[in-house]
Amino acid sequence: MVNATASNYTELRSHSVEAVREAIRANQYTGHTAGLAPGKLQANLAILPQEFALDFMRFCQRNPKPCPLVGVSETGDPMLHTLGRAIDVRTDVPGYNIYRNGEMTGSQSSINDLWTGDLVAFALGCSFTFENALLNAGIALWHIEDNKTVPMYRTSLQTVDAGAFGGGTVVSMRAMPANRVEEAIEISSRYPWAHGSPVHIGDPAEIGIDDLNQPDWGDQPPALEDTVPVFWACGVTPQNAIMRAKLPHCITHTPGKMLITDIDEAAEIPII
Amino acid sequence: MVNATASNYTELRSHSVEAVREAIRANQYTGHTAGLAPGKLQANLAILPQEFALDFMRFCQRNPKPCPLVGVSETGDPMLHTLGRAIDVRTDVPGYNIYRNGEMTGSQSSINDLWTGDLVAFALGCSFTFENALLNAGIALWHIEDNKTVPMYRTSLQTVDAGAFGGGTVVSMRAMPANRVEEAIEISSRYPWAHGSPVHIGDPAEIGIDDLNQPDWGDQPPALEDTVPVFWACGVTPQNAIMRAKLPHCITHTPGKMLITDIDEAAEIPII
Repeated sequence: MVNATASNYTELRSHSVEAVREAIRANQYTGHTAGLAPGKLQANLAILPQEFALDFMRFCQRNPKPCPLVGVSETGDPMLHTLGRAIDVRTDVPGYNIYRNGEMTGSQSSINDLWTGDLVAFALGCSFTFENALLNAGIALWHIEDNKTVPMYRTSLQTVDAGAFGGGTVVSMRAMPANRVEEAIEISSRYPWAHGSPVHIGDPAEIGIDDLNQPDWGDQPPALEDTVPVFWACGVTPQNAIMRAKLPHCITHTPGKMLITDIDEAAEIPII
Repeated sequence: MVNATASNYTELRSHSVEAVREAIRANQYTGHTAGLAPGKLQANLAILPQEFALDFMRFCQRNPKPCPLVGVSETGDPMLHTLGRAIDVRTDVPGYNIYRNGEMTGSQSSINDLWTGDLVAFALGCSFTFENALLNAGIALWHIEDNKTVPMYRTSLQTVDAGAFGGGTVVSMRAMPANRVEEAIEISSRYPWAHGSPVHIGDPAEIGIDDLNQPDWGDQPPALEDTVPVFWACGVTPQNAIMRAKLPHCITHTPGKMLITDIDEAAEIPII
């Protein structure tokens, strides 16, 4: 396995979506996908046995902000036909996490050996889409400027259960000047396939976050100073719901290493 | 069964959503629901055996414009918990059509006797929502002014298959002056749970419609004169897909007699 290097990341940034996907498929690139194939919708990936698929779809339908479902495969078919011309979920993500009974048992850069006829692949939109739109509007995002991971927190906001799937909503936090918050709401609400508008603005305690300096995932943010914390529903929510359900086996993308689709980020619907 | 009369329709128009639903539940009102409980999201209803539910959800996910899924029940549970405080799909629609092997076998005003533990209920958004928004913007809609049914047409636009579900997209047509079309697109695109923006504008032949004067459902429209025909994806599409799939049994609402939810029409997500 060729590990991602700064140089091939930089090179890939100027490549087409097809070239990026080809490098990922060939395991020539196994790094994170932020900033690659600009303008294309990127997605979280979850692969589950069919017996859990109906409940997982119900979970996504009932929790569209943390779980914006953008694509679903046929049972046993590794191609996501509605998201691109030739997207193979066995190879087209830079890294996969493997889970057995709710415990992570390993990571791989492709899963040809694990694909079986009872599996269903789900793609869920991710925050890269609305972050790009915020950046384009001139709203600075600290974690991107500093090449850090956005801080993520468990909250007291409960999801709506479906079968074995449930639990709390995980949020990501981006701080900004108070006079940019309305604009950030308006911009992100245009992207229902990427978590939509924020789920909370202001006092973290109101959604059960004790200390912004201690995120459950990602990096510690800088002091708020004159900025307001804005919280969006996060794709870790369905990952947590899947782990909590203790499925006998399932596979997800490795965080940050997303599925890059052929769908335009600004598309009204995520169908090619 | 008490049939709807003009007088109780008129009276119900000023009632709360709870009072309207109570009248429907008690079979005191069995008419169409256009204009009732203004501001509340109304929905198409489809009730299928669980064995077809996963494919039907995939069909809706892949065809979000004709099939905007707004709610799904647990298997065997007739309550749609995410759409209201006490919505019972066995009683809360003014009329139901019953199908066996793809053929309609009857209509009923409630389905307590037909509900079984293997059924799943699906609610799909409908055009009333964006029509209200168009009317509020001062865009006249002939079929509402004349108390007619919007004309609907089979098209050459194919849906994306899922299992037994597939076939052509059915569209509804509303004609308007050319200088209002952009506004109509912008307004309807704000309602992804109600078919979103149009699927076609202008020449009907381009989507396989030979003659606007011969709709496949609904009433013949007036001559276009100086207006442009605008076509939206229509909730008859999933009804057709269900009939075409020849399921052993299924139940839908009777056209025009929709499920009235507690969700605000302008809500970002259709979850209470």
